[in-house]
Parts: sequence; structure tokens; C-alpha cells
Amino acid sequence: MTTHAHALAERYIASWNETDTLRRRSLIEDVYNEHARYTDPMVDAKGWEAIDATVSAVQNMFPGHRFTLAGDVDAHHDTLRFQWHLAAPGADEPLVIGFDVAAMEGGRIGQVFGFLDKVPHVI
Amino acid sequence: MTTHAHALAERYIASWNETDTLRRRSLIEDVYNEHARYTDPMVDAKGWEAIDATVSAVQNMFPGHRFTLAGDVDAHHDTLRFQWHLAAPGADEPLVIGFDVAAMEGGRIGQVFGFLDKVPHVI
Repeated sequence: MTTHAHALAERYIASWNETDTLRRRSLIEDVYNEHARYTDPMVDAKGWEAIDATVSAVQNMFPGHRFTLAGDVDAHHDTLRFQWHLAAPGADEPLVIGFDVAAMEGGRIGQVFGFLDKVPHVI
Repeated sequence: MTTHAHALAERYIASWNETDTLRRRSLIEDVYNEHARYTDPMVDAKGWEAIDATVSAVQNMFPGHRFTLAGDVDAHHDTLRFQWHLAAPGADEPLVIGFDVAAMEGGRIGQVFGFLDKVPHVI
């Protein structure tokens, strides 16, 4: 369970970093159920198409930036939580720190509850 | 939305502190949907009856202890997250620190994803 949860979280992060259109969509279909829901403070996306469009939009907002898992993946009862960092190319400090709870259904993600722990200052 | 979320989190915490059987059940029916699901690392409870039994069992494990909200309630898209403390009577430091994400449906809680940030050492 914990191994699967960690591997799923890694593939989830990989989907946020994958800029090749076909590979990104393939990762998203592997990671999420077809009608999965993803929410964070800015977004409410339902299904592969909307989630893919969300990831693409974020990648366009932060070109060249990379997502990484931060710390452990904490998992129980088909639920996982983890923090992630988004960093600019070559940066030491993350630009954004986020936190997600993901509910699994049948081994894939059925819903993501995303939160932001650190956001860039808007000048 | 944020005001409602905060008030809901406060009533949720109150339900964990309420030891009068009838008042506790009334709070639980007010806070959760009838078929709500509550999970944490130790428990998977579905519906008012099972949630009430869970809360009662925790109260029996920690007699006289009090739950309090810790920090802000962070809310968006019918979702809230908050940390809580469980402290022994007269204690300065919490014995347990937990963290919950709650998904609302129609103004009440449809699902709680509970996690533990600090647990007592078992000797």
C-alpha cells in the first residue's frame, strides 16, 4: 500500500513535469480515473481532458520549472498526502510549495484536494 | 464560504469534545451527512452511527482531554483543511496533533481524510 502510494505520487508529480503532449496525457490516464476531480484554490477540473488542460496551463505559466515531491508520502486507507515544491530552473528555493491529499479508487486517483502552503508574491 | 467552513470546523471539533450522548449525536448529525465517511490511520467509519461510536471510543481512550482547532481553517471549493490538538487536562503541550481535510457536500461534511502529525510515544 505505502509502496504503491509512493509510486503513484511520483507518477502524479511526473505528469506535472511532462511537457510532451502525448506522454503527459498518457501519464494522466495512468494516474487518474477517467472522471477524477482535481481541485486547488484556483482550479476545479473534472476528468482527464480538464486535468490535462490544467496541467498544460500551469506549465505555460511556469516555463522550465520543475515539480518535486517534498518529504514523505503519508498513506492510509486509499488516501495519501504529500507536499511538493515547484522551482524555477537552477533555483535553490522553491517558488511555490503545495500540499495535496489524494483519494484513490481502484489503484488510481479519484480525487485530489490541493492546497498551497507558499505562493509567489505578486508585485 | 470561509466563515461557513470555519464554523463547520468549530462544530466538528465540538463533536469530538461532547461527551453527553444525545448532544454528541445531535452535533454529529448536524456536522456530517448521513452516509459521511471518516478515515484516519486507525479508523474507517461510515455513517452517523459508526462515526459516533468512533468519537465515543476516542473519548474513552483519553478521558478529560480536549480537542482544539490549531491555526487557521484553509478553505476552497467545498474543501477545508485544519490542524487540531488533543491535550490532557491542564497540559501545556498537546498529546496528539492531527490534521484533517474535510470535503463538504451541501453544507455538511461528506468525507473526512484524517492524518496524525504527532502521536504519543507508546512505552
